[in-house]
Amino acid sequence: MDKMNFCIVGLGLLGGSYAMALTEKGHTVTAVDVREAAIDWARRRGIITEGATDGFEPLLERADAVVICLYPDIAAPWLREHQKHFKPGVLITDVCGVKGHYVDEVQSFLREDAEFIACHPMAGREVSGVEYADCAMFRVANFLITPTAKNTRRGIAFAHALADDLGFARVTELTCAEHDKVIGYVSQLTHAIAVSLMNANDDPHLVDYTGDSFRDLTRIAKINDKLWSELFFANREVLCGEIDAFTASLLDLREKLATGDEAGLRALFVKSTERRRLFDK
Amino acid sequence: MDKMNFCIVGLGLLGGSYAMALTEKGHTVTAVDVREAAIDWARRRGIITEGATDGFEPLLERADAVVICLYPDIAAPWLREHQKHFKPGVLITDVCGVKGHYVDEVQSFLREDAEFIACHPMAGREVSGVEYADCAMFRVANFLITPTAKNTRRGIAFAHALADDLGFARVTELTCAEHDKVIGYVSQLTHAIAVSLMNANDDPHLVDYTGDSFRDLTRIAKINDKLWSELFFANREVLCGEIDAFTASLLDLREKLATGDEAGLRALFVKSTERRRLFDK
Repeated sequence: MDKMNFCIVGLGLLGGSYAMALTEKGHTVTAVDVREAAIDWARRRGIITEGATDGFEPLLERADAVVICLYPDIAAPWLREHQKHFKPGVLITDVCGVKGHYVDEVQSFLREDAEFIACHPMAGREVSGVEYADCAMFRVANFLITPTAKNTRRGIAFAHALADDLGFARVTELTCAEHDKVIGYVSQLTHAIAVSLMNANDDPHLVDYTGDSFRDLTRIAKINDKLWSELFFANREVLCGEIDAFTASLLDLREKLATGDEAGLRALFVKSTERRRLFDK
Repeated sequence: MDKMNFCIVGLGLLGGSYAMALTEKGHTVTAVDVREAAIDWARRRGIITEGATDGFEPLLERADAVVICLYPDIAAPWLREHQKHFKPGVLITDVCGVKGHYVDEVQSFLREDAEFIACHPMAGREVSGVEYADCAMFRVANFLITPTAKNTRRGIAFAHALADDLGFARVTELTCAEHDKVIGYVSQLTHAIAVSLMNANDDPHLVDYTGDSFRDLTRIAKINDKLWSELFFANREVLCGEIDAFTASLLDLREKLATGDEAGLRALFVKSTERRRLFDK
């Protein structure tokens, strides 16, 4: 896309990775964060030209695009408070993992001359902070765009161009409701399982006995408790439903095992094998 | 250890990987399998010197050590039928993922001049067949030895030397009961979860939306249905108990989510994060 002036609000792992990728593509990138150290680090590495912890209004006034990389619960309040400083025609996007009511809320109070196009870059690591920023993680990842009736062609085209400049492998458009349903299953349920598996046994010697499978299933049990608590509560109904569907599936397997239904158990294995193969293509 | 003559019974992924590692260490390795193609492949690659699908008695008669790499349900019957051909003083080991009653059974009918020392190499892949053999997978894996009162110092020392020659990263001795309890949790429960997660949703477009976490949690949902059905039934009581403990842990998380207990939910995340960190050392 044409070279733009981006302002990243919230310079953590994801915000920093956005800054890195966009700077590499020739855009001008500035940042707002509460940590002076985050701004300094990013400036020294050359992934932003400027940044500020306060007095950042001039950065917002110059930005053609603003990327909100804040914790879910403070994203909408921050926009409400600071939108008065935005340039007319500004494009605003985000990285929030749940879209639900939040996208509607932001679009309901946003200035008429600004557009909010919600996005979810499905990339992350078990660490936080701009110091771990690495835009290479985008190259194998999916980018989800959740337009609403309030979005324009220009806004949606911007989101696609952004995904392209960030280097994502695959881009998909979904409604906010579809997004939250899918994410409740592929992302939130998997985190709930990993956490619960890790917490189900307190044998301190487990590390001596584990194979790759246990390590793979619990990698994401290392989790940012504040961020994921906000994400879980923002999608509470969907996630409870997914937990129930998964539990029913597991208890069906347990029933076949307990009753000696060998054919039934093997049929479950055959089904899961076929389904998982689709992911290898 | 001193150079020995090994006979591998069952030349699949694991048997083939044993043959490869032991040949590299200078041992003489022969093999018995039902597939002529498996024998041919291994002989052409030089990972065995000889092999046979029938008329294999001379291979057994010459072997100082026999490694049983058969499906769990046929391991004991095979030993019962063919032990008459073993050399006096032979050391026998296996790769079976459940030890329970099976080790006792084998040791109860085994010839007085032979010793069975049970082992569980915790390595594998989502494919089968000697054609995928690769002893490099042992270098990051755990090797479990489950001696009983019937085992001698010589037998146990052999198992340790074997793990060493195969190149395993870590070796642990456990009782058969401890082994099955641990395996029920770290291996069988994780496979039950992966299968059930994969089967809980039939959206064919999931691949477009998934992140690394879902892929990691379902990698082992591609599963050898015959092998894992036998392993699950052989450890049925333990595995049902582990499924119950895990389900209770997951439903505790669901309860905190449903009732809005933010502090309780975050405490679960903090606990799982601390526990998972132990695995990073």
